[in-house]
Amino acid sequence: MTTHVDDLTDPRLRDYVHLRDVQLRSSLEAERGIYLAEGEKVVRRAVEAGHRPLSFLMAPRWLDTLADVLDASDVPCFVLDEGLIEELTGFHVHRGALAALERPEPLAVEDVLRTARRIVVLEDLVDHTNIGAVFRTVAALGLDAVLLSPRCADPLYRRSVKVAMGAVFRLPYARLDDWYAGPDLLRDAGFTTYAMTLADDAVPLDSVPADVDRLAIVVGGEGHGLTEHWQREADLRVTIPMAEGIDSLNVAASVAVACWHLRPR
Amino acid sequence: MTTHVDDLTDPRLRDYVHLRDVQLRSSLEAERGIYLAEGEKVVRRAVEAGHRPLSFLMAPRWLDTLADVLDASDVPCFVLDEGLIEELTGFHVHRGALAALERPEPLAVEDVLRTARRIVVLEDLVDHTNIGAVFRTVAALGLDAVLLSPRCADPLYRRSVKVAMGAVFRLPYARLDDWYAGPDLLRDAGFTTYAMTLADDAVPLDSVPADVDRLAIVVGGEGHGLTEHWQREADLRVTIPMAEGIDSLNVAASVAVACWHLRPR
Repeated sequence: MTTHVDDLTDPRLRDYVHLRDVQLRSSLEAERGIYLAEGEKVVRRAVEAGHRPLSFLMAPRWLDTLADVLDASDVPCFVLDEGLIEELTGFHVHRGALAALERPEPLAVEDVLRTARRIVVLEDLVDHTNIGAVFRTVAALGLDAVLLSPRCADPLYRRSVKVAMGAVFRLPYARLDDWYAGPDLLRDAGFTTYAMTLADDAVPLDSVPADVDRLAIVVGGEGHGLTEHWQREADLRVTIPMAEGIDSLNVAASVAVACWHLRPR
Repeated sequence: MTTHVDDLTDPRLRDYVHLRDVQLRSSLEAERGIYLAEGEKVVRRAVEAGHRPLSFLMAPRWLDTLADVLDASDVPCFVLDEGLIEELTGFHVHRGALAALERPEPLAVEDVLRTARRIVVLEDLVDHTNIGAVFRTVAALGLDAVLLSPRCADPLYRRSVKVAMGAVFRLPYARLDDWYAGPDLLRDAGFTTYAMTLADDAVPLDSVPADVDRLAIVVGGEGHGLTEHWQREADLRVTIPMAEGIDSLNVAASVAVACWHLRPR
């Protein structure tokens, strides 16, 4: 259902405004129960994952590429010139196509853990790019799920979804409400926990057992790394050996290295 | 030499304008033979690496933290309120301190290769964030150097430097002028080349020999991966095994995984 629009105050476009304002978007999307997919591939994957689109917004040149997706849907597709899209969204939409979708119901932690054998647990990762990169890597390397601390950034924020190339649609994840009780919860669920840390006295990654039955790799936030509580409660504190004088890897690179070394085989 | 400034048209501030305009900055910095360091840690590391600062620019609150660096230098430090810095640079400078430094002389390829045993070769990585992330990872995991194709983004661009957390100052790198002749050049220098690819018939990373004397890990650009020429000429085509239905890791994650698996021991 293609609808050409040239009035940017049209209320039907209200899901697509102020895309550069993270705080505003976060509350707006939570309130309306939506999220945004950006880029042809990501829009396609969102729909293929079974998420319900509420509308599409794109420049004319994307209509052909996404024709099959649009034909299979009965929601409006608003067509605007690229310049108007930029004016509406406040943002140069690089790959031209956007969709607003219904935010899926969050999964319960128990459901995510039930069948998982390798998971990554993220504490206070506040950067959407990092969240997206971590999801993409965890999914690509064949791990099963992600758990998030309450303060982690939203995996369904536009930027996370884009960097993840849609991996946030495939990889089950859940948010822990009681972060402090997390180590106990994982222990009760039968998981061994490896806390990634820069501490000198932690075990180097290449010396830890990789053939653990159920394993949770726990990673701290961008600023200060993993909290003392999680480091103390973990079964093992693990460090990635680094060259002298280098203080750390970024969190997405650390996760890539740890997930590869501890991948399911 | 602290100089309070409130006139943004002061010509001494000309190295700090239009920080969001990548194209303009790239030609301006090349022309003037400068680069910019951003953030207290990165500014400090640039100076510690022996690069010659031409000036500093910061908000008042950074003067104390960087006092030792400023005291040891005889170039001007321009002090502006944060709001004016943002107006001047077109950019919210998150960590308050900037420095313009003399761009160091590029190293010769032969000099970079002479003593290196593990290197990463980058073809057409055009994203400054990816360049920075790759340098940080390669340095942290103890590899020796990076070679760049002619079209790779600039490791000394502000964003690359920042994401690399200064690893671009420590890790030797050089640009190959004749990219097509690169495989021969590496072979003549005694390197075995592993071409990272998504090709189905490539050897999985966990099956390749890691104890090679001199090894070059060759990685393609963000869009289309490594060119046919380099894949054909490499000693081995190597792939990171991925979960079904996932098309690829991002380039920084691929480099992290490959560098870890093939790290020097």
